[in-house]
Amino acid sequence: MRPVAIVAAGMTRFGELWQSSLRDLFVEAASEALANARASRLDAIFVGNMAAGQFVGQEHLGPLCADHLGMAGVAATRIESACASGGAALRAAFAEVASGMSDLVLAAGVEKMTDGAEATAVLATAADQEAEGYQGITFPGLYAMIARAHMAAHGTTEQDLAAVTVKNHRHGALNEKAQFGRTVELAEVMTSTMVADPLRLLHCSPVSDGACAVLLCPLDQARKYTDRPVKIRGSGMATSSMALADRKDPAWLDAVHESAVRAYAMAGVEPRDIQVAEVHDCFSIAEICCIEALGLVERGLGARAAPSGETALGGRIPVNTSGGLKAKGHPVGATGIAQAIEIFEQLRGDAGKRQVKGARIGLCQNMGGSGASSVVHILERA
Amino acid sequence: MRPVAIVAAGMTRFGELWQSSLRDLFVEAASEALANARASRLDAIFVGNMAAGQFVGQEHLGPLCADHLGMAGVAATRIESACASGGAALRAAFAEVASGMSDLVLAAGVEKMTDGAEATAVLATAADQEAEGYQGITFPGLYAMIARAHMAAHGTTEQDLAAVTVKNHRHGALNEKAQFGRTVELAEVMTSTMVADPLRLLHCSPVSDGACAVLLCPLDQARKYTDRPVKIRGSGMATSSMALADRKDPAWLDAVHESAVRAYAMAGVEPRDIQVAEVHDCFSIAEICCIEALGLVERGLGARAAPSGETALGGRIPVNTSGGLKAKGHPVGATGIAQAIEIFEQLRGDAGKRQVKGARIGLCQNMGGSGASSVVHILERA
Repeated sequence: MRPVAIVAAGMTRFGELWQSSLRDLFVEAASEALANARASRLDAIFVGNMAAGQFVGQEHLGPLCADHLGMAGVAATRIESACASGGAALRAAFAEVASGMSDLVLAAGVEKMTDGAEATAVLATAADQEAEGYQGITFPGLYAMIARAHMAAHGTTEQDLAAVTVKNHRHGALNEKAQFGRTVELAEVMTSTMVADPLRLLHCSPVSDGACAVLLCPLDQARKYTDRPVKIRGSGMATSSMALADRKDPAWLDAVHESAVRAYAMAGVEPRDIQVAEVHDCFSIAEICCIEALGLVERGLGARAAPSGETALGGRIPVNTSGGLKAKGHPVGATGIAQAIEIFEQLRGDAGKRQVKGARIGLCQNMGGSGASSVVHILERA
Repeated sequence: MRPVAIVAAGMTRFGELWQSSLRDLFVEAASEALANARASRLDAIFVGNMAAGQFVGQEHLGPLCADHLGMAGVAATRIESACASGGAALRAAFAEVASGMSDLVLAAGVEKMTDGAEATAVLATAADQEAEGYQGITFPGLYAMIARAHMAAHGTTEQDLAAVTVKNHRHGALNEKAQFGRTVELAEVMTSTMVADPLRLLHCSPVSDGACAVLLCPLDQARKYTDRPVKIRGSGMATSSMALADRKDPAWLDAVHESAVRAYAMAGVEPRDIQVAEVHDCFSIAEICCIEALGLVERGLGARAAPSGETALGGRIPVNTSGGLKAKGHPVGATGIAQAIEIFEQLRGDAGKRQVKGARIGLCQNMGGSGASSVVHILERA
């Protein structure tokens, strides 16, 4: 298997981008990545996208994106794993380069969620339609049940949940690409509108538009494109039961755990080697469960991390320095690539006010549904 | 790059399968493939599917399919490239095995089209929404324009188009999995209901339900699963402009041509080495354009192939011995895998009454939209 590097990145601002269509967003991010590498050709494109068919009436994003990038002809495929579509696209691009099939590959993600479709209903098609969707439940409800299970098992409190939001907004306020560029206080989170008990509005990631792209090539060709490549040292993917009710412990995200085990094994590292991590905080409870499943904190102790400052910038293991899905925004198909970009920038020392000093190894974890799919990548400064 | 083989296949009947849901169809095909290989585990699953979000309100097919196969945990990803989703899934599985990331990988395709959604409208989301969809055109209209362009450039007649249908129904009548198990006569085709001039009902592939799966592994492990493996010798993918109007010659499918050039190059073979081919006859004109673009006949002479018997069973280069999309049926995400299964069976000598004697090398070509994406695989008896 050929070693693979990320050599460049491009990203739109995340937010309600009324002036840009899906194709505009993709082209902006992809062009920036290509320009940063001074590359004018590609061998293949993978586009992570959850539901453009439902959101904007457009399937077949591979050729659409290649065409509007001015690269009709190039092999181009859309990859979908709900909100883990971006991570899955990165993994497909990694396999394409690692196999030797292609040398220069763009892994992108895009979602245009604010064009009129009812976002919560569209997102709900990532849940099991027969076991969950037809009962009327949507994701705030599913994650509320995860939160209740975590509270019951581990004594997690509403204040613990709110501390995740406060931390991620503090990080996001340092990120000019973030949808929400302001901090929030604990009291504000804990009195925000109830969405699905115990999850309030400020525990939920927003509905967002945005696109991201990273450029991959064999590690031994990386210096053609940048003097600071980042190696993809491990890639792991796993699934769990589609329906939350089919899991023994709803508060334990087994797909996240298994995808991490696989990525750690490929990378030959352990959780304690990780210096910075982006994890899938679609709801504040999700960050708590994910850091446990990734082994970044002990099982059952995830809720203590944000209140203790352990996962904040300057803490033992900074998590979601980008602001996470909560503050940076969550254009679902783009999120997995945005996470990889944050780690890429951290490992290159380009993260500005969010920089984790001396970070050499980082992790990004992207999740679909209520944890039915998860993708983990481990990156290292080359 | 590790050499890769197909070692087993499974397939549902194609048709209006009211009694089966999407997940039922997938499980039936996947279980059959696993049973044929006496395999009880998998490293990864790729599911080709165009539009389950729109057809049945279900995205996130990777974990859904893994779960209902009894294999929650396994890495599983949905691959989409409109009607080329199956071919793209096969290609992703090929890269996964070739790279060394996984050993035993299921490449599947599934589509459930008859559950109530307006199929023609859903399929139209594979066209360029801004340039084509918003004008109200759907695929019968787009392929009718391709047919008119071919007629104008090359003198192709309505009788030539009808001859493709007659041939493929003759083949399909020998295939017990086919949606239409009967032959049709030229006069019946030429007097069938006009859909989009010059394309009549019997020039159009049907709306279908169905699923298919093939099992891939490294060639040097193939004899564990079968005594007659089939090697994937070449894989090529390409795109063209999304909108038909942006192509210089609408009758020349440049993505099909380029995907074939890439697959031939990887395989180290030429068009004249191909002994049997499955090509994307979503409309009769598509088969004519595809065999030209694949180099199986000279450019401009595609229309003569069916009337002359050249592409029939017993002819110089039998095309669509399965019955093709026209007679076998076209559950869009499954089609690319179904094509690979027909070639797999031909090369193993398992095609029964449809057998092309002594076939050692075959090709399958799967197309999305009006030819905006195309995937070609070249298979060889190992």
